[in-house]
Amino acid sequence: MSDADLPRREGEALVQVICAGICNTDLEIVKGYAGFLGTPGHEFVGRVVESPEASSIGRRVVGEINAGCGECKRCLTGDSRHCAARTVLGIKGRDGAFAEFLSLPPGNLLEVPDSVSDEEAVFVEPLAAAFNILEQVKIDSSSDVVVVGDGKLAQLIVVAVARTGCAITVIGRHEKKLSLARAYGADHIHSGDLPTEWLGRFDLAIEASGSPSGLANALKLVKPRGTVVLKSTHHDLTPLDTSQVVVNELNIVGSRCGRFAPALDFIAAGEVNLSQLISHRFPLRDGVVAFERARVRSVMKVILQIG
Amino acid sequence: MSDADLPRREGEALVQVICAGICNTDLEIVKGYAGFLGTPGHEFVGRVVESPEASSIGRRVVGEINAGCGECKRCLTGDSRHCAARTVLGIKGRDGAFAEFLSLPPGNLLEVPDSVSDEEAVFVEPLAAAFNILEQVKIDSSSDVVVVGDGKLAQLIVVAVARTGCAITVIGRHEKKLSLARAYGADHIHSGDLPTEWLGRFDLAIEASGSPSGLANALKLVKPRGTVVLKSTHHDLTPLDTSQVVVNELNIVGSRCGRFAPALDFIAAGEVNLSQLISHRFPLRDGVVAFERARVRSVMKVILQIG
Repeated sequence: MSDADLPRREGEALVQVICAGICNTDLEIVKGYAGFLGTPGHEFVGRVVESPEASSIGRRVVGEINAGCGECKRCLTGDSRHCAARTVLGIKGRDGAFAEFLSLPPGNLLEVPDSVSDEEAVFVEPLAAAFNILEQVKIDSSSDVVVVGDGKLAQLIVVAVARTGCAITVIGRHEKKLSLARAYGADHIHSGDLPTEWLGRFDLAIEASGSPSGLANALKLVKPRGTVVLKSTHHDLTPLDTSQVVVNELNIVGSRCGRFAPALDFIAAGEVNLSQLISHRFPLRDGVVAFERARVRSVMKVILQIG
Repeated sequence: MSDADLPRREGEALVQVICAGICNTDLEIVKGYAGFLGTPGHEFVGRVVESPEASSIGRRVVGEINAGCGECKRCLTGDSRHCAARTVLGIKGRDGAFAEFLSLPPGNLLEVPDSVSDEEAVFVEPLAAAFNILEQVKIDSSSDVVVVGDGKLAQLIVVAVARTGCAITVIGRHEKKLSLARAYGADHIHSGDLPTEWLGRFDLAIEASGSPSGLANALKLVKPRGTVVLKSTHHDLTPLDTSQVVVNELNIVGSRCGRFAPALDFIAAGEVNLSQLISHRFPLRDGVVAFERARVRSVMKVILQIG
């Protein structure tokens, strides 16, 4: 790559990507989700090569993916994640991490401690998204929680939610993934049709199946006045039985990105073995094959090794 | 009606219906919603003719429509509205108010003060459903609220929400109904396409349009992390853009029935003129015509005069 081709943005840091993870959102983006036509990729670790903050040059970093305008009411109150004019790394108006270099504002970057490996650092973004649930809904040791899905995000949600000491049931499709969910803290695991006695049982259902049918199942599983946290993003519309929501007075809460610092601290504390979530590693030049592999249902995290 | 045909239930009160209101739910039930094949009708005022509580005989009453089993955890904590084994007047397992007599447990009945007319009393049930919103979500004088819909339930929602002193915008289709909404406390009224500058503006949207498109509009109108209260029940599935819910971290709250006492007190205090909501009155024998009329979009409440 010639120097002129580097994705520099004024006032921002230039980061050389070390490795990056493929997420379901990336698979959806390639199918047309969000109408994004740039370079995808938003889970990464890299090294700062240029920055207006000279002291950060050379540091190994992860980066919050939302870059707000910095001037609107949202940004001024610290919520650039919902700035209407934001760009989002590899998702909206800003090329992402499946490249040798990327650009982000210096304020988005967090230094990664030496105790955290490159591959572990790639999980900061999705783990922050999982931790975000704990900031949105009340979960404590008396809560009865079901996670719908057994994929990589669902696994990290189990890791996050298990910290509250609540009861966790995971409903999935793959014995191997379900076993991993148990290792991460699930008390009960289940595949196949929903047991009748579970319908209307749970205080909280977290929908992370990545499938349009996940929401309908989650709504069936929670008790009246229960809450469904919605994590999956699809390209398609999902049929919703609104009368079920109204009659049972259910609460549906959309959940997206989270704060990086708590997730990074958690990984740095060595409290979780994330390497079990990695199915494959590919060099960037094999990106197309990596995407193909990431689509396979039994596959968990696919890592692109870049720099 | 012979004495043997009276809808008596053991341990319950027999109520002679004076008049009853037709609600959108009744129209949906007749179309197949909820699979109910009995006598519909759940908004009523009547007079107690038989009761295990002798002192109530002869009293004019309204009645909470959910009858719980009285023994489950829900019922024992006072939430019979969500008892899994409940019957619901004119909706589920229990014949309703479009008849000369109905039966309800004595504990469901509230005496109507003399200051409240028969027709006003019919509005206690839907007004309680509107007041229920105030128990589910936080609304105060700084809230910017939009009501999607201008029908009879939407009007009562405006009445309820206006008590908080919040700003209220109503989006509907009928100039006359919108004018009434303004009289009930709406600060702004609008018909036609959604103005672009309103998208993502409101703290709270209340969907009471009775139309499957209402939810999509409500979701567009609220700001990130905003709340949509869902009131409409349909027979049909509604297509939901889950990615919009996830990306903007929206909250959807289903809302059904409310407590009768605050609504009855409010009407008894003479704080609202409800007669403006009544479009037509029919005797019970003209029930079919009354239902036909209630389906007309410009029509508001249709009252059946029964006893």
